Amino acid sequence: MPDSRRKARLWIKIDLGEGRQIGPGKIALLKAIAEQRSIAGAARSLSMSYRRAWLLVDEMNRDLGSPVVETRVGGRGRGGARPTPLGEALVEEFEAITKAAEKGAQPGLARLLKRSKTV
Amino acid sequence: MPDSRRKARLWIKIDLGEGRQIGPGKIALLKAIAEQRSIAGAARSLSMSYRRAWLLVDEMNRDLGSPVVETRVGGRGRGGARPTPLGEALVEEFEAITKAAEKGAQPGLARLLKRSKTV
Repeated sequence: MPDSRRKARLWIKIDLGEGRQIGPGKIALLKAIAEQRSIAGAARSLSMSYRRAWLLVDEMNRDLGSPVVETRVGGRGRGGARPTPLGEALVEEFEAITKAAEKGAQPGLARLLKRSKTV
Repeated sequence: MPDSRRKARLWIKIDLGEGRQIGPGKIALLKAIAEQRSIAGAARSLSMSYRRAWLLVDEMNRDLGSPVVETRVGGRGRGGARPTPLGEALVEEFEAITKAAEKGAQPGLARLLKRSKTV
């Protein structure tokens, strides 16, 4: 049953209007910050420049209207960062939204895969 | 009630696996071809180069394993193009999938919008 192993996925960005978009890249960064406890470490783990990571965090802070990451200076000689409760909620909601969207889309995706004859 | 006018949307691409992606750009092109009855006209109406439009059509033909657009030469001195039944089905399924996905995502999107304080 080769067909049973085929799976179509959705690639989803949330558009909050006024140019505010939250997609898989920003969410991956927030998750990496939670894991690495620093923006620099998160950037490194995603092969992203520190500048790029910082700009994405800044964009999310502005998109959501409140900080999604809190930073602290010092503490054993180095700073650190972690998602705020809003940042954590953003990750959770994004994952809930994409999961719900994929569930809703599944019948159509299955029909489409059936029609696409390759692979 | 300013909040009632705010609306979060999803921006969705379908990933059929193996690098095969169908997104809003390709679907808009198929719809423009159906309307303009030519690839050149569709490209023009979307401010897209003819080469780009042709490449996107070619990519969809390969993604789906069968042509999504049929072209014809001649006929009052000019060629023409239109979506095949598969191309028409692709547009319909894409629209059904994105609609179902947005419906599934709506509760989460509403929660997220409520949390985002800007606008």
